Amino acid sequence: MTDSPRSMHSHLSRSSRDRISIRGADLTDDLMGKVNLGDMAFLELMGRIPDEGESRVFNAMLVALVEHGITPSTLAARLTYLGAPEALQGAVAAGVLGLGSVFVGTIEGAARMLQEAPLDTAAHARDVAASIVARHREEGKSIPGLGHPIHTPVDPRATRLFTLAQEAGLSGRYVDLMHLIAEEAERALGRRLPINVTGAVGALASEMRIPWRICRGLGLMARPIGLVAHLLEEMQEPMARHVWEWAEEQVEEG
Amino acid sequence: MTDSPRSMHSHLSRSSRDRISIRGADLTDDLMGKVNLGDMAFLELMGRIPDEGESRVFNAMLVALVEHGITPSTLAARLTYLGAPEALQGAVAAGVLGLGSVFVGTIEGAARMLQEAPLDTAAHARDVAASIVARHREEGKSIPGLGHPIHTPVDPRATRLFTLAQEAGLSGRYVDLMHLIAEEAERALGRRLPINVTGAVGALASEMRIPWRICRGLGLMARPIGLVAHLLEEMQEPMARHVWEWAEEQVEEG
Amino acid sequence: MTDSPRSMHSHLSRSSRDRISIRGADLTDDLMGKVNLGDMAFLELMGRIPDEGESRVFNAMLVALVEHGITPSTLAARLTYLGAPEALQGAVAAGVLGLGSVFVGTIEGAARMLQEAPLDTAAHARDVAASIVARHREEGKSIPGLGHPIHTPVDPRATRLFTLAQEAGLSGRYVDLMHLIAEEAERALGRRLPINVTGAVGALASEMRIPWRICRGLGLMARPIGLVAHLLEEMQEPMARHVWEWAEEQVEEG
Amino acid sequence: MTDSPRSMHSHLSRSSRDRISIRGADLTDDLMGKVNLGDMAFLELMGRIPDEGESRVFNAMLVALVEHGITPSTLAARLTYLGAPEALQGAVAAGVLGLGSVFVGTIEGAARMLQEAPLDTAAHARDVAASIVARHREEGKSIPGLGHPIHTPVDPRATRLFTLAQEAGLSGRYVDLMHLIAEEAERALGRRLPINVTGAVGALASEMRIPWRICRGLGLMARPIGLVAHLLEEMQEPMARHVWEWAEEQVEEG
Repeated sequence: MTDSPRSMHSHLSRSSRDRISIRGADLTDDLMGKVNLGDMAFLELMGRIPDEGESRVFNAMLVALVEHGITPSTLAARLTYLGAPEALQGAVAAGVLGLGSVFVGTIEGAARMLQEAPLDTAAHARDVAASIVARHREEGKSIPGLGHPIHTPVDPRATRLFTLAQEAGLSGRYVDLMHLIAEEAERALGRRLPINVTGAVGALASEMRIPWRICRGLGLMARPIGLVAHLLEEMQEPMARHVWEWAEEQVEEG
Repeated sequence: MTDSPRSMHSHLSRSSRDRISIRGADLTDDLMGKVNLGDMAFLELMGRIPDEGESRVFNAMLVALVEHGITPSTLAARLTYLGAPEALQGAVAAGVLGLGSVFVGTIEGAARMLQEAPLDTAAHARDVAASIVARHREEGKSIPGLGHPIHTPVDPRATRLFTLAQEAGLSGRYVDLMHLIAEEAERALGRRLPINVTGAVGALASEMRIPWRICRGLGLMARPIGLVAHLLEEMQEPMARHVWEWAEEQVEEG
Repeated sequence: MTDSPRSMHSHLSRSSRDRISIRGADLTDDLMGKVNLGDMAFLELMGRIPDEGESRVFNAMLVALVEHGITPSTLAARLTYLGAPEALQGAVAAGVLGLGSVFVGTIEGAARMLQEAPLDTAAHARDVAASIVARHREEGKSIPGLGHPIHTPVDPRATRLFTLAQEAGLSGRYVDLMHLIAEEAERALGRRLPINVTGAVGALASEMRIPWRICRGLGLMARPIGLVAHLLEEMQEPMARHVWEWAEEQVEEG
Repeated sequence: MTDSPRSMHSHLSRSSRDRISIRGADLTDDLMGKVNLGDMAFLELMGRIPDEGESRVFNAMLVALVEHGITPSTLAARLTYLGAPEALQGAVAAGVLGLGSVFVGTIEGAARMLQEAPLDTAAHARDVAASIVARHREEGKSIPGLGHPIHTPVDPRATRLFTLAQEAGLSGRYVDLMHLIAEEAERALGRRLPINVTGAVGALASEMRIPWRICRGLGLMARPIGLVAHLLEEMQEPMARHVWEWAEEQVEEG
């Protein structure tokens, strides 16, 4: 074997016999008992502990993503647990697998749309927004982060997130652009299209300089917490077998 | 179709047009901006917001579980991302799937051992501990939550968790029993067997009355945060291809 | 780095510029166009191409496991596809995750029960069977591979598999023991307990000397074929959204 | 509850007490002992049993996809098994998750490219091929199904598949177009770009009228067979721990 030159790096964690450091912070002295779980997530992504305002907003973003009730993802987790109760991790993984382009993926879509917008040019932000809306309409695509089947005319989670960001001084040009896009979309389509929770999270993640490629990961950090809670409930008050039996009956009659 | 009587319940979330409640708390008014992500996890599991001491300890338990460096789980996530970069959720799920009986499953094992111990009988706790150690030895099984390949003679995370629990008044008979089991195991085996981080988490979860069947879920709530961070790093400084190429070379020469 | 002595082996495949060999057979010359997919699976597990009788029985075992209609596993796959249509592999994986101890895991259970039975001792096989039944009853466990909610008094797939094995000369002491266990169980419980498809597969796998630890893998080889077919159907005639909406309604009223 | 009109259909399987039919065929009478596993896969996808030529080619396509040695996917499966040996299905699922756009996804890419080509117009097929190559070059994308790091100047599996298809009369305009695309790509890029196994499978699947959206599924049907074989080998001659330890060492020194 020619030991080909390779270099592998990871900057997330180091550990020795009596010390563990995570992104430069001492796990037992600086983190445990001092930062909360949302701050830890921020540290993992950004390499530094958030300041007070960032902590409040970032925790709120993740808190908003934890629990969305009965969804395809929580149903898949519950159905998986029915067949494989020996492996709780498999049921959580099955739930994670449904967090794709249709649901939490819109965080990524919204963040990408904002982060790739030509905000550094001379163009007026409203013109940028209008051209983004026009481009989506031409391509027949819906605009990520806008609209909600239930929460109209506003998604209260988005409203709350924007208020928190304002209070923390974290509201800037990406939040402004998201609002302009919503306005231009409503004008172009002639109907209410509120910024939804994933749109708001995508805008605030952009303000925090979180790269859009990892923004789907914000949902992937938060939602497993909800999935574990659904599985505890499934142990106590099972519903998966009912869902299965109903679906079988429907198909037999179909 | 005879509509067979079914009743399906979920107490986790309700939502209407302008309001979302999660386990009875209003998401936007009571939770976002007011509780942190660890508190939200506690609420999801226990149905109530933790008090200040519980919040500090529970957040520390989860913080300790987020990031464990290069592990089989983080490697599986990185290798999966190499083949399927279109689906970040798949890479996270692959990492979650390795969180089974060997690694985070020991939280469940330790919690079960403690919660099933006959502590309500007249038996002295030390005798209970000794008989637990004896039973594991007879069955040729290692005791969950004890021992660590690197962190000896003590796991600093366990020490820190026990200190935090003591300060918060959350240290009780399960923590005592875990310590007694460690002592009896060290005496029986004639070597150091420190309580490790999963043993400490299992003991504290028991103090908080979290059922042992869901205790593996504490790791499943925390570790996806670390997995997302590893995948962000993998995008920036990939290592999966190196690992693959090295393994292929080894096998070809093997 | 002290290059610690490691040796990694894999005997499954070798490849060079113009040749690929799989377990010693040339992929293009010996396998493609000459063996079918079931034979390839046999080769992968056993290291040799099956003879004609083995091929017929082994293919029938896998064919019987491909498609089981609307199950928790196929529902989980369909629900996952609804949320993540960009990643077909994620939907298949979600379906695979439900193939645990409750469903295909009984193949493993039956094979283990048979392979661990003391058949080499002087004990009469019927006594061995009776003691296996007694042990399961004492432990309050159901006997793997027996009973079916719909297919009574016999599971036609098991009957067919036993006939095929008989014709191929592959029926021996494990098949006999499985029948004796069923008889003893029916006598002890006073009701019909037919050998089901997983029991028959477990018995025939044992006749073929497939280790019980991998017998769950027979289901894991076959069922993804059915999962892909369900996902093609889901693309054409979706049902996942209906299932989701129904479940949400039930819970809201619950 | 207003029972909203829903209709759910599945045409894959029906079962009664003594009979199971799969896509219209009787499982025990028509399939078990009569068709092989590849034919069963064809039936599941296409709704009919393949004729002899189709059977030979389709089985060969799947046989070629079963085993690809040490890959990111098989490594992820082995690493997952190390952490969760209680759940073989989780290790297989982890391996499945790596079968995304980069590896087996190219079957889908090639099939889509061919199936969306304007072959029904007056344009000469070579012009169609040239314009496909030009479009990929403009977009800076590689052409799916062409090129291989090891198998040059030809991928022997592709050669074999094309020969088998020729013999069975299954080679037509899609196979021709794939060859023309390879020729035009080689001319445009000035280097050898052989059709690889996924390109050949994509072309033959197109000849069989398998919709491109499900073509990734051909890999997802075949590869779990190889994954199970890798996990059996991992039980017998483990390599996952070596891979983990090596990776950790590399990072510590990195």
